Amino acid sequence: MTPTITFWFDFASSYSYPAAMRIDRVAAAKGVLVEWRPMLLGPIFAQQGWKDSPFNLYPVKGQYMVRDLERTCGALDLPFQLPRPFPQNSLMCARIATALEGAPRQKFAQAVYQIEFGEGRSIDDPLAAAEALRRAGLDAALVEKAQQDSVKNALRAATEEAQAAGVFGAPAFVTADSELFWGNDRLEQALDWAVAGHL
Amino acid sequence: MTPTITFWFDFASSYSYPAAMRIDRVAAAKGVLVEWRPMLLGPIFAQQGWKDSPFNLYPVKGQYMVRDLERTCGALDLPFQLPRPFPQNSLMCARIATALEGAPRQKFAQAVYQIEFGEGRSIDDPLAAAEALRRAGLDAALVEKAQQDSVKNALRAATEEAQAAGVFGAPAFVTADSELFWGNDRLEQALDWAVAGHL
Repeated sequence: MTPTITFWFDFASSYSYPAAMRIDRVAAAKGVLVEWRPMLLGPIFAQQGWKDSPFNLYPVKGQYMVRDLERTCGALDLPFQLPRPFPQNSLMCARIATALEGAPRQKFAQAVYQIEFGEGRSIDDPLAAAEALRRAGLDAALVEKAQQDSVKNALRAATEEAQAAGVFGAPAFVTADSELFWGNDRLEQALDWAVAGHL
Repeated sequence: MTPTITFWFDFASSYSYPAAMRIDRVAAAKGVLVEWRPMLLGPIFAQQGWKDSPFNLYPVKGQYMVRDLERTCGALDLPFQLPRPFPQNSLMCARIATALEGAPRQKFAQAVYQIEFGEGRSIDDPLAAAEALRRAGLDAALVEKAQQDSVKNALRAATEEAQAAGVFGAPAFVTADSELFWGNDRLEQALDWAVAGHL
């Protein structure tokens, strides 16, 4: 059996951007399969008493986050621009990602992150979501279809599942033996854990 | 000229422990000189509206921090035990470290971290501070001497200097060209920046 990790992401999360852009390459090099799982941080933050991103609640952390991501993305040769307002409302794109599976979900997610943090554009807009679908080679009609109750409920259930797994921020990585790792900078450690647990 | 970084630490900070234990080895391997600077996070956190450690204000983050440090310290072959209460009152030891310089400051700091996070013991106690001084080969009488106004003022000024440099958490690393890096997991990046800026 191949080792696997679950990659929990929210399109509102800035540090999920470099993680989404590099996880396949890094995971493949270590022989780990990645399951991409969209979720919403909003309800999870609300349970911690945050009504906004911690990067807005604590501006000094927000300023540092931008500089830190400029450096991190620079080292990965990824463009980085913070969209305004930050964080973006990620609900529409999270539903579309939920309605997709496998490679299409991943390609769509990467296209959204590219638009949002690579180009600094809004993603809370049906036109932007449709553009991300087209960039991923998918049908733009999914923007409408993803607003069904079944998809809404699936995203709600996924967010509850993430929270039950201990997820309190994004990106988060969970191994098959339920070990939780938080942050783009813990990706390698999570993959190594998945490989070691499997031996 | 040799590249240098300033290493800002607080004895109350759990992530400063692995940083303090490994910084000399990692910095020496990259040819960087490290200036150890004690400070107090309390006044800095207070300005962000925190009256306690974020790890207590947000218990789910506190639980994760413990597990994350178990893994990080495990990989470094460092014992890890969280002292109770957490965070420890670091004022007495911070004053002693302020009264020291150079290698004695560093050896004392490492002895404090060893007692606090390696052995999980309280450091807010003249006996513990004296023990750390003895482990560092220093005179235990410094526990008393460090309570002078000149030392108190120097620590207050250092904390203001850290804050002016943008420090909002610990450990923090600042390069000669004022680039700020936050967290034990950014140490290598800070050292690489110091080296590159120097070339």
